Amino acid sequence: MSATHDASTQNGIDMANARRTTSVDISSICHLLHNGRTQWETRERIVAILSSDPVFDKSQRHYQSRAERYTRAVAMMNRIYELQVIHNWSQHEVGVALFNIDESLPISLHNIAFQPPVMSQGSPELILEYGPLVANRGIMGCYMQTELGHGSNVSCLETTATYIPETKEFEIHSPTLSSTKWWIGSLAKTSTHGVVQAKLILGGVDHGPHLFFVQLRSLENHKNMPGIVIGGIGPKALGGFAANDHGFARFDHVRIPKIQMLSKFAQVTDDGKYVQPPHAKLSYGGMLYIRSTMVGSNGWAMAKAATVAIRYATVRRQGEKGPDGLERQIITYPSVHIRLLPILSHAYVYIQLGKVLTRLFDAMSSRLQQKDTSLLPEMHAITSGLKITVTTTCIQDIETARRSMGGHGFSAFSGLGSLYADQLPTVTFEGDNFVLNKQVIRAAQKSYTNILKSKDVFNLSSSNAYLRLLVGEHSMPSLPSDSEWQNPATAVLLLEWRAALLVRELAQHVDDLDASATQRTAGAVTEAFIAARVMEMIKELPVVIGDKQRNVKILEKLYLMYLLTTLETGVVDLLSFGVFGVAKGKGDVTRSLRLTIKNLCLELLPEAIGLTDAFGYTDWELDSALGIYDGKVYEQLWRRAHSEPINDAEMSAVYEESIKPILRRGQQQAADMRAKL
Amino acid sequence: MSATHDASTQNGIDMANARRTTSVDISSICHLLHNGRTQWETRERIVAILSSDPVFDKSQRHYQSRAERYTRAVAMMNRIYELQVIHNWSQHEVGVALFNIDESLPISLHNIAFQPPVMSQGSPELILEYGPLVANRGIMGCYMQTELGHGSNVSCLETTATYIPETKEFEIHSPTLSSTKWWIGSLAKTSTHGVVQAKLILGGVDHGPHLFFVQLRSLENHKNMPGIVIGGIGPKALGGFAANDHGFARFDHVRIPKIQMLSKFAQVTDDGKYVQPPHAKLSYGGMLYIRSTMVGSNGWAMAKAATVAIRYATVRRQGEKGPDGLERQIITYPSVHIRLLPILSHAYVYIQLGKVLTRLFDAMSSRLQQKDTSLLPEMHAITSGLKITVTTTCIQDIETARRSMGGHGFSAFSGLGSLYADQLPTVTFEGDNFVLNKQVIRAAQKSYTNILKSKDVFNLSSSNAYLRLLVGEHSMPSLPSDSEWQNPATAVLLLEWRAALLVRELAQHVDDLDASATQRTAGAVTEAFIAARVMEMIKELPVVIGDKQRNVKILEKLYLMYLLTTLETGVVDLLSFGVFGVAKGKGDVTRSLRLTIKNLCLELLPEAIGLTDAFGYTDWELDSALGIYDGKVYEQLWRRAHSEPINDAEMSAVYEESIKPILRRGQQQAADMRAKL
Repeated sequence: MSATHDASTQNGIDMANARRTTSVDISSICHLLHNGRTQWETRERIVAILSSDPVFDKSQRHYQSRAERYTRAVAMMNRIYELQVIHNWSQHEVGVALFNIDESLPISLHNIAFQPPVMSQGSPELILEYGPLVANRGIMGCYMQTELGHGSNVSCLETTATYIPETKEFEIHSPTLSSTKWWIGSLAKTSTHGVVQAKLILGGVDHGPHLFFVQLRSLENHKNMPGIVIGGIGPKALGGFAANDHGFARFDHVRIPKIQMLSKFAQVTDDGKYVQPPHAKLSYGGMLYIRSTMVGSNGWAMAKAATVAIRYATVRRQGEKGPDGLERQIITYPSVHIRLLPILSHAYVYIQLGKVLTRLFDAMSSRLQQKDTSLLPEMHAITSGLKITVTTTCIQDIETARRSMGGHGFSAFSGLGSLYADQLPTVTFEGDNFVLNKQVIRAAQKSYTNILKSKDVFNLSSSNAYLRLLVGEHSMPSLPSDSEWQNPATAVLLLEWRAALLVRELAQHVDDLDASATQRTAGAVTEAFIAARVMEMIKELPVVIGDKQRNVKILEKLYLMYLLTTLETGVVDLLSFGVFGVAKGKGDVTRSLRLTIKNLCLELLPEAIGLTDAFGYTDWELDSALGIYDGKVYEQLWRRAHSEPINDAEMSAVYEESIKPILRRGQQQAADMRAKL
Repeated sequence: MSATHDASTQNGIDMANARRTTSVDISSICHLLHNGRTQWETRERIVAILSSDPVFDKSQRHYQSRAERYTRAVAMMNRIYELQVIHNWSQHEVGVALFNIDESLPISLHNIAFQPPVMSQGSPELILEYGPLVANRGIMGCYMQTELGHGSNVSCLETTATYIPETKEFEIHSPTLSSTKWWIGSLAKTSTHGVVQAKLILGGVDHGPHLFFVQLRSLENHKNMPGIVIGGIGPKALGGFAANDHGFARFDHVRIPKIQMLSKFAQVTDDGKYVQPPHAKLSYGGMLYIRSTMVGSNGWAMAKAATVAIRYATVRRQGEKGPDGLERQIITYPSVHIRLLPILSHAYVYIQLGKVLTRLFDAMSSRLQQKDTSLLPEMHAITSGLKITVTTTCIQDIETARRSMGGHGFSAFSGLGSLYADQLPTVTFEGDNFVLNKQVIRAAQKSYTNILKSKDVFNLSSSNAYLRLLVGEHSMPSLPSDSEWQNPATAVLLLEWRAALLVRELAQHVDDLDASATQRTAGAVTEAFIAARVMEMIKELPVVIGDKQRNVKILEKLYLMYLLTTLETGVVDLLSFGVFGVAKGKGDVTRSLRLTIKNLCLELLPEAIGLTDAFGYTDWELDSALGIYDGKVYEQLWRRAHSEPINDAEMSAVYEESIKPILRRGQQQAADMRAKL
């Protein structure tokens, strides 16, 4: 029996045909997504190095135990910094390597959550002593905030840092079981140091949570420092974050020198007096930075899911037979492409939106350097809302893509299972999405109250622009005609009306909200913000794309897909407020919207493979039998099945111990049964 | 540092208080759910035996490799049948043990998918020879339908069974790579035999797929039979179904005697003539059986999720401080309980609905015995629709419950990760949910056409009852008043209107459907069916509950919760058809519905722990640190973290190989950096 045959050949033919059908210029879109040709080439070069290095081989991941996954992860960490020396990589290039490695390494906590607070909030003395070590990973650190009993509500953290004026030291202490630091990435095995969040106690008075730089392990032999108990908290759900050594730690009256309080802002005098920070929120930048980067990184995760599922749906033939006598490619079924093309549009929008966020963050950051916090509230509201919408959508999209692949989608070899598991905690960490909803609403309500008073619609920030609709004489839109639906401005305006009406409704019933009002309103506010940004992206297209008219036209359609499907999901709110003035007993008023989406799908379908190729993912990055570039998915599944270790093992012990006894017992019982007949 | 402290003590106090607040009589509800006291006591007795037997210990599962999970599974299989002998368990009792073992064992394929077709479709000769062996597991089998290239579209399966009149044999053959049997549970290591679905070829003519009984492995030494290549297909996404040895098989002209065609219905004469079955659909019973059992089993999975999440939300305190100076129990936040109480209502409804399905299936089955297929189409439509709704909801609910638990919900110790992974394939297998939608719609359209012709509303089957609204003079309902919402009949009627309007709309636009019409309409049809059954459950309550008036009142509210939250999700359709006659510019017309739900939550809240206790799950069954009966979740997390093997290992090799080189390199680079300053 040969391993090649018609279906595999057909796989290749179908994929090649799909590539031929694509009319967009893939490489110019690829450069657009990757911030220009230079950055794309950097990424391509680095991925080529990683994918050919056996340290980054992925073929055994599905069979490795937790300890093995961790062992592989630290080997990868070490190799990346070896490669940095070999290839003289810049910090940016190391970042590119870490982003594309398809594994959340413990070092990421050092880079994202340890180094930034130390460098931006440490005193000059601390930075003088430890800065170079931190910057070069001569020490490796983690960020120790959450406790067994407390997550994001830091005001109730129990760990204490008590100042001892006599020795000019702080004593870090875990008074209770529930004060045990918990869920700390990179803590269980990797970190030598940590930034510990603890209640600052001065002369018996609690000054609330502050940050302290604490050595956890010896730099000689990596043993725990005295008075500190450290361990791993166990595996994560669904095998997510398997390579990261999330840990716990308890402190038993551990003394650290006074200089190790991160005291650029709040300070303690030698004799134990508290010195207020100049502005309570100067230290918020780090959290906003992490949230703002999540927009783009989630966009790239959706891009992976879209690439895998659209490729598989292109070569998978199943069901009705077409005129060529072959079963149809499943992507041609409306029930399949209506699920996949919106994911493609989400990926494009969020990748581009990530760049908007980077610009906004940089603007805020340089003001913060001047101790100007004026942009903080706006940035806080925007990143909170986006964090919720982007992470929720991303998880949903990865799973939608996985399900679209039917049975084989449930194979680990589909690649989307592990992508899902690793993305899943994003809906919880950096602010649980349901808790964050309240932040979005608080900001929206404040703006609503202000604008009702001021009527000043000319100075509305971008996150509040939709509120202009509630001031002066704006008549509610009617049901758009078929041609109006083609205009992206229609959907943007409707999404803004939705936000405005929900915010007003919420404000009117603030003392008796229904249980989902916060969630619905926060989502609508964020979607109105995104919609306005998408409108800007559409307007900029001719500029950023240059002379590729075909690309402009297709990307316009993709962005329109984003807007219309977002509106379709939220249309219940418009209907609830009677926006379309529906007549009783007539047909479905949403039909024209839904038909527009259907037809848009058909227009985009021939471009789907080109638009996913433009993300530029290699087979090594996707690590998916079903998302393989050449489309030969059955060959891939067949080949990968043979890497399964249970196929090598004779497993004769299992047969002797368990299977044979069942069979022999059953054979005896069958014989007894016959004998009785 | 002691392992006990206030938070843990408070955990216990909070749980005890919640149990005291409950006013329902837990044991009578428990008996109701479990089909009476006797069945409950059987389950309790069997679970006690399993949970105290080390073979069924779950503590190492999260750390075991695939091979180890499988090894454990077959040991469990053997032990269950040992226990059957020891305790003289009936078949029913063995079934109870298998259902409550919290692991999908390979033997389940023998019991559900191999034994039934052999026994119900095999010829008398085959059953005479193999029946006792099959019944007693003297041989163990699997059901070999899907192929690498084909899933549920069996008409395109490629495996052939060619009749050889000369020797009165069939030749089973896999002509291509894509014809490799794939995704076959229990095949890779366990099964000795399989029922193979293959195209029957008689004299060169293809008669479509039929079933054949094929020996796969030697009964002497478990080696593959000649001409058969068998292996494992690799791990499943998210670690789901880890204990099951899904496999592949290829046949190279394998000969089997003619008697091994399952020929109770279709037959082949000795000289190779085809004998039509008396009715093409007589063999459909098995598929409908599996789908009908999924309703109840999914209900019990939701019950697990509800139990774990509601218990955790009861003892977890976070956020605002209440009058007692403690942070609030998170279940008191509307954003938490609005997510959890509907899950509780789903669990109750689906568990009870599962019993309805069993009755319907038994009725159909006894008619099928008489070769009367008249109940098949109705049963097919009902089980298809329910399979979609129940599995989709179950997966969504498990994940909603997991997310409600915040950070600790992402620990494997939450227990809901593995529950999710094991339930996840239900949305795909036994008919992919998106493909099945079309079956539901086809049945609905047929009934719609019939009733428009006949106008006979008196003989509508239960799945078509909503169509009565489209015949004669029924005026559309208006927006219910607050008190009308309290009447379950209001929501039931609205859900029926929704189904009726969507089916009519679909019929009117059948040549130009939007891409989600099939999915939306199928969901509405099924939800109308379920709603009518819930109405029956409510009416029966005083009968089945007896004199416990308090129970009746609370369960009525729980069922109302089911109806109203289902309606809330589907309200967009009613609004699209203008059912509520919304006035433009007024407030949110859905507010009264949503407020009713909010207030219903508050009424049910004090009963939540009682209603979850009534499911009767033991700590061993839940295997969840967060769902522990006594509420002491922090102690559980702390204890379980210490079972993590990476905490035992010194892991000094990892330090020497990877961590130390990073640190030393960094320390050198830091020193170089300083030297340059």
